[in-house]
Amino acid sequence: MSLDLSTLVQPASTKIVLVVIDGLGGFAGPERGSELEEAVTPNLDRLAAAGSVGLLDPVGPGITPGSGPAHLALFGYDPVEYQLGRGALSAAGLEYEIKPGDVAARGNLATLDSEGRVVDRRAGRLPDAEAVEVVKKLSENVAIDGVEITVAHESQHRVLVIFRGPDLSPAVSDTDPQTTGVPPSHPMAHVRFADRTAEVVAEFDRQVRELLADHPRANALLLRGFDSHRDLPSMHERYGVRSAAVAIYPMYRGIGQLVGMQVLPTPSTLEDELALLREHWDSFDYFFLHHKPADSCGEDGNFDGKVAAIEALDAAVPALLEMDPDVLVVTGDHATPSQMAAHSWHPVPVVMWGPLAGRDQVERFGERWCRDGALGRRPGTELMPIMLAAAGRLAKFGA
Amino acid sequence: MSLDLSTLVQPASTKIVLVVIDGLGGFAGPERGSELEEAVTPNLDRLAAAGSVGLLDPVGPGITPGSGPAHLALFGYDPVEYQLGRGALSAAGLEYEIKPGDVAARGNLATLDSEGRVVDRRAGRLPDAEAVEVVKKLSENVAIDGVEITVAHESQHRVLVIFRGPDLSPAVSDTDPQTTGVPPSHPMAHVRFADRTAEVVAEFDRQVRELLADHPRANALLLRGFDSHRDLPSMHERYGVRSAAVAIYPMYRGIGQLVGMQVLPTPSTLEDELALLREHWDSFDYFFLHHKPADSCGEDGNFDGKVAAIEALDAAVPALLEMDPDVLVVTGDHATPSQMAAHSWHPVPVVMWGPLAGRDQVERFGERWCRDGALGRRPGTELMPIMLAAAGRLAKFGA
Repeated sequence: MSLDLSTLVQPASTKIVLVVIDGLGGFAGPERGSELEEAVTPNLDRLAAAGSVGLLDPVGPGITPGSGPAHLALFGYDPVEYQLGRGALSAAGLEYEIKPGDVAARGNLATLDSEGRVVDRRAGRLPDAEAVEVVKKLSENVAIDGVEITVAHESQHRVLVIFRGPDLSPAVSDTDPQTTGVPPSHPMAHVRFADRTAEVVAEFDRQVRELLADHPRANALLLRGFDSHRDLPSMHERYGVRSAAVAIYPMYRGIGQLVGMQVLPTPSTLEDELALLREHWDSFDYFFLHHKPADSCGEDGNFDGKVAAIEALDAAVPALLEMDPDVLVVTGDHATPSQMAAHSWHPVPVVMWGPLAGRDQVERFGERWCRDGALGRRPGTELMPIMLAAAGRLAKFGA
Repeated sequence: MSLDLSTLVQPASTKIVLVVIDGLGGFAGPERGSELEEAVTPNLDRLAAAGSVGLLDPVGPGITPGSGPAHLALFGYDPVEYQLGRGALSAAGLEYEIKPGDVAARGNLATLDSEGRVVDRRAGRLPDAEAVEVVKKLSENVAIDGVEITVAHESQHRVLVIFRGPDLSPAVSDTDPQTTGVPPSHPMAHVRFADRTAEVVAEFDRQVRELLADHPRANALLLRGFDSHRDLPSMHERYGVRSAAVAIYPMYRGIGQLVGMQVLPTPSTLEDELALLREHWDSFDYFFLHHKPADSCGEDGNFDGKVAAIEALDAAVPALLEMDPDVLVVTGDHATPSQMAAHSWHPVPVVMWGPLAGRDQVERFGERWCRDGALGRRPGTELMPIMLAAAGRLAKFGA
């Protein structure tokens, strides 16, 4: 039986900082260690020496998490219980609000041949400027009685579509066939109540194809991941903390917003992110600071780039310590080993520093050393309660 | 799905001893190790060298357990499933039996001002002798039709109250406002069935205040933690062991009694505790021996005192081994780091010794060494099945 943490929450004036180095985890190859093991990180090593380290399994053994579940786990939300569709994440990332009753989907601008078969699911990854024009055309011209339709551009071929109106349901199958050589799939209702939504989606598809018929490459919009409003309990409800998200990329600001964080103004650099923390230090109890480049380099198979991205974060540690947090944690949301050029299931190093975080014998930050740390190896969701405890924010359980 | 251990229980003539060093766990600071790491413990180190060590998380990550849940976990009872109120623990500690239908509460003798507002929730922590007089007066004079009321003194301002009679319910709110400057709270029924109990409690409060009106400091009794009879399955039912509790402090004898242990006569010293074990060795299969001073010193922030308390227990190990147990375990119920002067969520070292307990490479007993032990790091509830197995008391599962 699991304990409801919110019953133990007690007020405190402590400050918690969670730094997420996106895609931090990796693994040693035959010739060299992981990116973090090879990186020169004197400041993170100092945190490791003075604090406690360990390894996190973001979702479960062998499970490679997307960014949504990986972050939810770090925030203490069971990522299997709280599943977010592509639509919800895209909307959150673009700071569009999905209201109760709305249905959102992720769309790909795609190329069909003259027979209506998919030739390129990403329309040649068309440039943003071209995609924005296409999206504008759709926004201004698609019209279905009784349904308000929002089409918003994300990046390249990626588009968000929101349907708003009475009696809509996300229980509709994708129109994206996820392959080429076949026509877009006809949207099917999974439940009787979704019949009307399936009709709306089919009509949307018809109008889009008519409007884009003369476009050379973006002549269709494939929809997938129909999703509805998600009402996640907020960090404040669950943990009694006023929390803030500091992130350069929209998706991570979006995930923060979904768990009720205050999203601070968009920074452009790590330096900006630190400045935001400093500026808003007194207004929040918990800061989520997101550092993206390690993941981007990992995804590109760029070992040295990932090393450099980790070293850049390392250089920011003294500035974080100057703010005098009570608990400082540096970890990753998941592994992105550059050997794989993709997210992976490998465990993610974590270091926790603070007066109550304890100290183990480990003096360096990296996978091979974290195995011996006082935090042990544990599911990602267990990090949050330990951070709250180390910040004096959880009362004793039982007499 | 979890396995019902009782289906695997098999008879054996083996002896198990569980020594609980209360508040054993701690953490290393910048200058020195934990209390256990710094203590000189040649005998515990010998157990560690010959046996298996590990780390226990009493209730869960980040959870700071009270003594009740912490001990239930060591006895293999899920402490979230079996929650004990203050009333039940107090009653057990005083060896009062709460029968089905009874309602028990923890009471504080308190001081109200002339306007009836709480001035001191503990009546100046009045001396036992004075409190005993007040409790006697209440016992002899409070009378409510159809309800038998027991008022028993615990220590200082602490009192236990038991209401016995038809149609009583523990679903009543506290009269203790947990703060000063306000009058005692009016008892409210949480459910319709508790209406009568709320009236009984209100009438009790009225009579107490009338009887104590002329007392200078203890002129009210604030009640909290209304609780009813708890019918925990016994250790015998669950594990087939005849179990005995040896503890100096009433609360720990009480917890033992709640899980069906035979509570042995009250000892005064660790030497007495050992003598009790020796005397009753043949009559039981499982002995719970409780050693309190490590926790008391930890709560006082007394690092050296806690070290000494651990060393005192260390000196008792040879006497325990002389009794020739098949499984000897030494651990703590929770951490009480002297840096915090309070219980905490940090993991607790455990050593298991015996012919079937295995041996790892660890040769010292303490947090930093236990991280590398054969028992690994695990929830506190997992200790009991391993002890039973090492005592040959669990049959093979499946063909």
